[in-house]
Order: sequence, then structure tokens, then C-alpha cells
Amino acid sequence: MKILLPDTVPLNPALPSGWEAVTIDCREEIPAEHHDAEALVVWGASRRHLASAAENLGQLRLVQSLSAGVEGMLAAGFDERVAIATGAGLHSLTVSEHALALLLSLVRRLPESLEAQRRSEWSTEIGGLQPLHPEGRITTLIGARVLIWGFGQIGQTLAPTLRALGAEVRGAARSAGTRAGFEVIADGDVLAALPEVDVLIDILPASEATAGAIGREALAALPDHALVVNVGRGATVDQTALREALEAGTIGGAALDVTDPEPLPADDPLWDAPRLLITPHAAGGRPVGADERISANVRALVDGREILHVASR
Amino acid sequence: MKILLPDTVPLNPALPSGWEAVTIDCREEIPAEHHDAEALVVWGASRRHLASAAENLGQLRLVQSLSAGVEGMLAAGFDERVAIATGAGLHSLTVSEHALALLLSLVRRLPESLEAQRRSEWSTEIGGLQPLHPEGRITTLIGARVLIWGFGQIGQTLAPTLRALGAEVRGAARSAGTRAGFEVIADGDVLAALPEVDVLIDILPASEATAGAIGREALAALPDHALVVNVGRGATVDQTALREALEAGTIGGAALDVTDPEPLPADDPLWDAPRLLITPHAAGGRPVGADERISANVRALVDGREILHVASR
Ligand SMILES: NC(=O)c1ccc[n+]([C@@H]2O[C@H](COP(=O)([O-])OP(=O)(O)OC[C@H]3O[C@@H](n4cnc5c(N)ncnc54)[C@H](OP(=O)(O)O)[C@@H]3O)[C@@H](O)[C@H]2O)c1
Ligand SMILES: NC(=O)c1ccc[n+]([C@@H]2O[C@H](COP(=O)([O-])OP(=O)(O)OC[C@H]3O[C@@H](n4cnc5c(N)ncnc54)[C@H](OP(=O)(O)O)[C@@H]3O)[C@@H](O)[C@H]2O)c1
Repeated sequence: MKILLPDTVPLNPALPSGWEAVTIDCREEIPAEHHDAEALVVWGASRRHLASAAENLGQLRLVQSLSAGVEGMLAAGFDERVAIATGAGLHSLTVSEHALALLLSLVRRLPESLEAQRRSEWSTEIGGLQPLHPEGRITTLIGARVLIWGFGQIGQTLAPTLRALGAEVRGAARSAGTRAGFEVIADGDVLAALPEVDVLIDILPASEATAGAIGREALAALPDHALVVNVGRGATVDQTALREALEAGTIGGAALDVTDPEPLPADDPLWDAPRLLITPHAAGGRPVGADERISANVRALVDGREILHVASR
Repeated sequence: MKILLPDTVPLNPALPSGWEAVTIDCREEIPAEHHDAEALVVWGASRRHLASAAENLGQLRLVQSLSAGVEGMLAAGFDERVAIATGAGLHSLTVSEHALALLLSLVRRLPESLEAQRRSEWSTEIGGLQPLHPEGRITTLIGARVLIWGFGQIGQTLAPTLRALGAEVRGAARSAGTRAGFEVIADGDVLAALPEVDVLIDILPASEATAGAIGREALAALPDHALVVNVGRGATVDQTALREALEAGTIGGAALDVTDPEPLPADDPLWDAPRLLITPHAAGGRPVGADERISANVRALVDGREILHVASR
């Protein structure tokens, strides 16, 4: 039995006896000598690679993606009997680490410190004695009211850390309830909640329902001091509305790891918006625990047990 | 009974019946009508204010500082019978939040992202698919070996958060052992441990013993990719040695919230050192839980119980 691994990330999964792992170029078509593979791992594959796999791997039973999104695999035309497993959870630690980095950078005014440093200036306005909660500004997570919009694997990984830092954390998802010890409100109640939110963290996937979720209305509902962080998908934010809110001072600051489109074109006015920090889709991009996930799912395949995180189609 | 509060921070401690709180200008001498005070709270007081208190408050029994360091109060000449209580612990949350902000900013390359943003450039070098642990570089706390030098109140507040983010955390203090669930090595063993350290966080107080602790020898012992963060005291780092290590590329990056002297003079070459982030002593500066500490210690005074965190002298 053969499993094909991508050359885009170092992998070394433990496999059941009789299984052979072969690393192949995942930009290219599948070489003929590997058309007998029963499992395929996907990470940064080209459309050509996926189409060739769908067409030629006659014995394929499992496509294991290492990314959370599997749109490309679902569109590639794999036979219905092939299980397509998502990489859900493999990016929770890295993306929540990045979200925290972006948020703390805004809260602790690091971009302004870097500006002052560039002028060789010890800014007494940023340092020294100061109120814990200055009027009209968030300068610490202690007591900050945080809403995480999109409260799935990543959001639930981030939330306990924010709570440990002193924030009051709630989530928002498609249905209300308590998840992982946090209050979750329903999508439809978000707008009404925003006036009481100091920090809004967007970890929404892209979909018709989430497109432009953070738009003019949501931005107007937030307090003027609110901070907005997006590590979900660019299309969930109306970038024109965000730029205008930053320019008008009706939100306190923002950080985006994702934009629409990506890369953000050089002439996009968003680059120059005030109090905005942009990182180039740098939050995830490096699955954690991929070997274990691959091993578990190949083992499940062999044993006839349920494969983890199979995408519905 | 009267307690004098400084005008530098909003305070509203719950006091035993019969106690009156008066807020006074803590840059000035104590007004004559308040020479009957039995307790004095100190935060950002001038030397003149402290000297006047030591000389004129004949019924004084407690000086409650809101800062961790009480050097100024110890030098002011208070009668031996006056208890001088430090603000130990009141800055643990804020300083550890700032240390985390500085560290994550280095780890997630936010200064480089800001540089790219300034050029309207979507840097594919920073974002996109990448190895979890690229050779010769720390880009995540997952699996990072962190040493916190100075493992007191602040260090022990920071350590669990770093562990939750995936780091392997150890402390260093004056004696070895296990504290708060973390392995602590002794001061004398730090140098030998540094070659296996990816992130060194300095939370040492200033003293003869700690002066220049992070000097040429320590910096040379660290791996070339190591990150150094100082939120303790400026004098614990040899700034010339740090600048040279950054320029020579023998450490990966650094962040300093404290320098020697403060403010750092405009012509200091440290401002321009590569891969260095400086914040102007902005980590603490805002006591958390001051009202509760004041209440507890006034109550202890009244009840004849032990006052918390009395400085030895
Ligand atoms: N920046 C990066 O590098 C990076 C890396 C990886 C992933 N991501 C993004 O992060 C997203 C979340 O990842 P995850 O692993 O946390 O996914 P997940 O576990 O599937 O969680 C998604 C969350 O979004 C909620 N949601 C979906 N549609 C919604 C809607 N219309 N209204 C309100 N909530 C909605 C879901 O609600 P229910 O729980 O009610 O279903 C769920 O709470 C991914 O989809 C991806 O876009 C970004
Ligand atoms: N940047 C800011 O805004 C800011 C704000 C507040 C405080 N600080 C700084 O942070 C420092 C630590 O605060 P804290 O509340 O954590 O103090 P703490 O609870 O007194 O802890 C100090 C730690 O340093 C260790 N230490 C002292 N001298 C040492 C030496 N010679 N060698 C090795 N370790 C030594 C102590 O070791 P033992 O446990 O073995 O005694 C202890 O672990 C303060 O002294 C202050 O300088 C900075």
C-alpha cells in the first residue's frame, strides 16, 4: 500500500506495516509509477496535481488535507468513495499565536514605539506612569471585553489564553450556547453586542454568509476605541469600510493577517490606513501535528474505523 | 485616623470605620493639616514629598508603596518603627503582558511586516507556506526553549502563558528548585544553560549582583537565533555588548522595555541597532489591585496582624 506525501513540508508519519510513503512534487502531475497510491496528503498542491490525482489514482481511498479549507480538493473531481479529510485543528496553535501577537501589538502600541524609536525618541507619552484604563483607549487586556467571531477550533484555542491575561471573552458562532467554558452568542445577536465590545477578533471562514460580516454597520456599532483583528478570511471584512472607520477615528485600530484579494495589490489604499497593521497571511502556513493526523487516519482506513474530520460533500 | 493617597493614580480603597482618605499632590511637601496621617500611599512621589513625610508625619505607621522597588522610600529617612510595604505583585499582570507582546512581536516578525507594509509590499518571505521550525530562526513559541532569568512574581505570572502557547519554560533565580510547577536553575548555572536557550527573558531587579548579567559572555553563549527580552531593569544588560551581538548577527533579535540610563539619550547608538525593539518603560506603570492591597494592609495595621510585603531594612 502506498501513500503519497507532498514535498512542501517535512513529514514522517508512522504507518501500518505494508505501507510505503513516497514524497512527490505537488506542483506536478502524479507520476505514472505512483498511480497505485491509496492515500494522498495535500499541502500547497497545484490544481494540476489535484486534477491528475482525481483522474489517475484508481485505488485512492483517502485524501488527507493539511489545511482547514478543502475547497480545492472538493472541486477537483475525486470519486465519491474517496474520503476527503480536512486538516481541522492543525493550525489552531499557530493561528491563535499570531492573533495574540497582532492583538498585543495593538494593545501595547508597538507600532507607535517603533515609530518613536526610528526618531531616537523616548516617548514619555507611551511609557511611564499611566492609568490602567485611560479614557477612550484600550492599553491592556486586563478587563477588556473580547468577542471572538467564529468560535471553532482556533477560537477555542485562543480564548483561554486571553482569559488568563485578564480579558472577558465571549464567542460568536452559528448557534448560541456554552462551548469550552465560554459563552457563545448567535451570529444574529452580534450586531447588538458590539457596542459593549473592546476587541473584536474575526476567525470566520469565507462563505456567502460571512462575506463582509465586518462592514459599515458592524464597524459603526463598535465603540470608537475598539480594536479589530482578522485572522480568518479577508472577504469577511469590508476593507473600504474598515479604512474609512480608521481614517474617521471611529475605531481604535486594526490588524489584518488576511485580505481580499491576496496578495493585497501595491496600489491598494489600505496599506496606508492609520493605526492598521497588515501581515501577509503569516498566521498559519505550517501544520502542527500533521504526522500524527496522517498516521491516525491511515490507521482508521486500514481498520475500517471512522476517519477524522471528513469533509461533507 | 487618616491615610494620604497620591494624586497620580485613581484610588478608592475600602477603609476600616474611623479612617479618612485624603488625596494630596505627591510632588509637593505634605501640607501641615495632614501631618497627623498614620498611613501614606506612594506612587510617583517626588524626593521632596518623601523627605517631608519622613520629617513631619509624627504618627506615621505605614508607608504603602505601589511599586515593586522601594529604594526611594528606604533612603528617605523614615523612622524605624514605620513599616514600608512594597507593591510586590501589583505589576505582575501588566509586565508579563508587555513581555509577551514584545516576545510575540519578535517571534512573529511584526517589525519586518510593518517595514514591508510601509513599502506597500505583500512579503511572500514572511507569509505563506513555511516550515514550523526553519533552520536558524525562531518563528513560533511552539517547542521554543525559554529561560526566564529572575523568576519571581512577574516571571511566575508569565510562565504558564508561555507554556500554554507551547513553549518549554524554565526559570533562573538565586536558588534552584521547582517553583509554581516550573524547573528553576540557580544563577550560577545560567551560563552553561544558555547554549540550549531559544528565548531569554530578563526580569531581574537592579542590584550589584545583577549588573550586566546579560553581557558579552552570556550573549556569546546563546545560539545565533536566540531572542532576548528585558522587562526587568536596564542595568542588567550590557547595552554595548547587546548592540554588537545584534550587529554581528550572533543573536537573532532583542526587545528592551528598560534601558540604562532612562530615558535613553537621543544620540545613543542603541536606537539604530538592527532587529531591536525598544519601548519606553511601558510595561508596568499602572498598579493592578492597589485598592485591595491598601485596604488589606490598613486592616492588618488596625488589627495588629502582619503587614504584607514589608521591605527589610
Ligand atoms: N490566517 C491564517 O493563516 C489561517 C490559517 C488557518 C485557518 N484560517 C481561517 O480560520 C478559519 C477558522 O478556522 P477553525 O479551524 O477555527 O475552523 P472551525 O473549527 O470550522 O470554526 C469555524 C467557526 O466559524 C463559525 N462560523 C462559520 N460560519 C459562520 C457564520 N455564517 N456565522 C457565524 N459563525 C460562523 C463556526 O460556527 P459553528 O461552530 O456554529 O459552526 C465556527 O465556530 C478557517 O476557516 C480559515 O478561514 C486562517
Ligand atoms: N518594566 C517595568 O515596567 C517593570 C515594572 C515592574 C517591575 N519591573 C522589574 O521587574 C523586577 C522583578 O519584579 P518581580 O515582581 O517579579 O520581583 P520578585 O518577585 O522580587 O522577583 C525577582 C526575581 O529575581 C531573582 N533575583 C534577584 N536577584 C538575583 C540574582 N542576583 N541572580 C538571579 N536571580 C535574582 C529573584 O530570585 P529569588 O527568587 O531566588 O530571590 C526572583 O526570582 C523588579 O525588580 C523590577 O526591576 C519592571
